[in-house]
Amino acid sequence: MKCKRCREKAEVALRAHNAAFCRPCYLGYFRRQVERAIEGARMFTKDERLLLAVSGGKDSLALWDVLAELGYDVTGFYLAQGIGEYSALSRTKVEAFAATRGFRLEIGDLEQEGPGLAVPDVARLTRRPSCSACGTLKRYSFDRAAHAGGFDVLVTGHNLDDEAARLLGNVLRWQTDHLARQRPVLEPTHPKFVRKVKPLYLLSEYETAVYAFMRGIDYVVDECPNSVGATQLVYKEALNRLEAESPGTKQSFVREFVRRVQPALAEPAIAEHTDPNACVRCGMPAWGELCGFCRLVDEVTTKRARRTSAAPAA
Amino acid sequence: MKCKRCREKAEVALRAHNAAFCRPCYLGYFRRQVERAIEGARMFTKDERLLLAVSGGKDSLALWDVLAELGYDVTGFYLAQGIGEYSALSRTKVEAFAATRGFRLEIGDLEQEGPGLAVPDVARLTRRPSCSACGTLKRYSFDRAAHAGGFDVLVTGHNLDDEAARLLGNVLRWQTDHLARQRPVLEPTHPKFVRKVKPLYLLSEYETAVYAFMRGIDYVVDECPNSVGATQLVYKEALNRLEAESPGTKQSFVREFVRRVQPALAEPAIAEHTDPNACVRCGMPAWGELCGFCRLVDEVTTKRARRTSAAPAA
Repeated sequence: MKCKRCREKAEVALRAHNAAFCRPCYLGYFRRQVERAIEGARMFTKDERLLLAVSGGKDSLALWDVLAELGYDVTGFYLAQGIGEYSALSRTKVEAFAATRGFRLEIGDLEQEGPGLAVPDVARLTRRPSCSACGTLKRYSFDRAAHAGGFDVLVTGHNLDDEAARLLGNVLRWQTDHLARQRPVLEPTHPKFVRKVKPLYLLSEYETAVYAFMRGIDYVVDECPNSVGATQLVYKEALNRLEAESPGTKQSFVREFVRRVQPALAEPAIAEHTDPNACVRCGMPAWGELCGFCRLVDEVTTKRARRTSAAPAA
Repeated sequence: MKCKRCREKAEVALRAHNAAFCRPCYLGYFRRQVERAIEGARMFTKDERLLLAVSGGKDSLALWDVLAELGYDVTGFYLAQGIGEYSALSRTKVEAFAATRGFRLEIGDLEQEGPGLAVPDVARLTRRPSCSACGTLKRYSFDRAAHAGGFDVLVTGHNLDDEAARLLGNVLRWQTDHLARQRPVLEPTHPKFVRKVKPLYLLSEYETAVYAFMRGIDYVVDECPNSVGATQLVYKEALNRLEAESPGTKQSFVREFVRRVQPALAEPAIAEHTDPNACVRCGMPAWGELCGFCRLVDEVTTKRARRTSAAPAA
C-alpha cells in the first residue's frame, strides 16, 4: 500500500477516506483536518486565547500538540476529579506532557474545592450516576476557569466517535433539545460563558490514536473506570459495526447532521435557554437562585453532616 | 411469571413493555395494539375497502388474520416475483392460508406481465441490485392493483423492526427527503394512488412471530434469498443490540420520530412530489412521459432483444 500523497510506503490506512499515508504525510493530513475544522466552522482565530480541557487521554493531548504546532495561543486546563488511581495517573501524564513541551497548564482540583466534592464522593452522597455527577462538576469548573482566566474560547477534545455516539443516543430518543445544542461551535448564552468548540469532531478515535502514537505522546490508555458499561460505549460499539460494514458512516452521520439538519433544529431551543440569572453565591449563570454546582455543594454538605452525626463515634 | 391481565401463567414476556401474557390475553393485546395503531393514526375505517399486500411471511399473514377478526373489509394481494423456490413456496402458503379461511385473494404475476420481468431477470438484465428492481416492480404492481380494483387503502405488513431499520438508515445518511415520507399513513399524492398504511409499525418482529405461532399460521420462515447481506439486516442487528441493552429503544425511536420529528420534516418534501403526469402507456402516475415501471419494461425488452441477436445459434 502506498501513501496517497507521496507514493512512499504507507503506514496507516483510512478506510472511511479510502486513503493511506506514510508517517510524515499522515501528520500533515491530521493537522490539515484540524485546521479545516477550525476554519470551516469559524471556531477561533490566532488572536484569541484558548483554554483547552485536557484529561490526559489521546484526544486532548493530540489536540494540544496540534494547536501548539499551528501557532494558536492555548493553555491547558486539567481538572483533578479524585477518581483514585485513574485520576492520579492522568494528572501525572498531563503534567509531564506540559513540562516536556513547555506548555502552559492550569490545574483545578475538586477535592480542594471542598470536602466530599471528589466525583466518587458526590456520586455516593447524592446517589447520582458517576457520569452525571462528573458532568455537572466538569462543566462548571471548565466554565468558571475560562471566565476567571479571561479566555475567549473553551476547547474540548471530543472526537468523531464521541460525537457520533452522542448523536445516536439523542436520535434514538429524539431528544430535540439536546440535538439543538449538538454543534461543533456553541456561542455563549451568557456573558460569563465563553464559546465552546470541538476541533476534532470529524476525526475518529482511531485517527487521533494514530496521531498520538506517531508523535510519541504518552497518554492514559485506560478509559475512566466509571465508563464501564456506560450506554455511550454500547452506542460506540453499534456504530463501529455499521462503520465496518460501510466505511464513512460515522463521518457522514455527524457531518450531514451538523450541515443540514442541525440548523433547522437550533433556533427555538436557543431562545429557551437565554438569559439565566447569576448565582447569588458564586456569580456564575444560574436558572434559579443558585447555580447547579452550588446546589450540588449544598446537597453534599448537608448529606455529609447527616452521615457524620448519624455515624457511631469511631 | 404471571400474565399481566389475568394473573394466570404467562406464556410470553415482552421486555420492551415490561409485561407478560398468557395466550388468550396476548392475542387480545396484539389485536388491541393493531386497532390502536389504526385508530390512533386514522388509517382507515370499516367502510373502506382495503387491499393488503401479502408475501406469505408472518407479518402480512398475521395482519390479515387480525384485520379479518376485527371485521375490516380486506382483500389480499399476492405478487408472484419469480424468485425460484422462495416465490413458489410463498405463493403456496398464501393460497392455502386464504383458502382455509375463505379470504378473498388476488394474484399478480410478474412473469405473466411480460418476458424477462421476474425479479432475478430484471436484476440481471438491467444490472440493478435485486432489492432495487423488486422495489420498483412491487410498488407499481401494488399501486396499479389498488387503483384497478377500486380499493380505498393499500395496507402493508411492515413491522417495528422494518421501520426502525429504515429510520436508522435514513438518519445515518440524513436523507431528509426519505425521512419526510416515512410515516405510518401516507395520503395519496395523485388521484390514481390510494392511501398507504402500516398498522404493524409499532409491533416488533418478535411480537408478530408470537402472534402467528399462537394462531397456528403456517408462514414462510425463510427470508427472501436476495436479502442476505442486505444493509437493512445490518441495521436490524445493530438495533437488536441496542434493544437488548435498553428494552423499548426501537419503539421509542420510531414512535417519537413519527409523533414529534416527522411533522416538522413532512411539509416541503410533499410539495415537491405533487402533480406527476400520467404515463402515456399505462396511465399510472409518471414523472416523465413513461412511468418507472414502463421504462423498466422497455429497458428489459431492449436488452433481451440485444442478447438474443448477439447469442450464437443454439
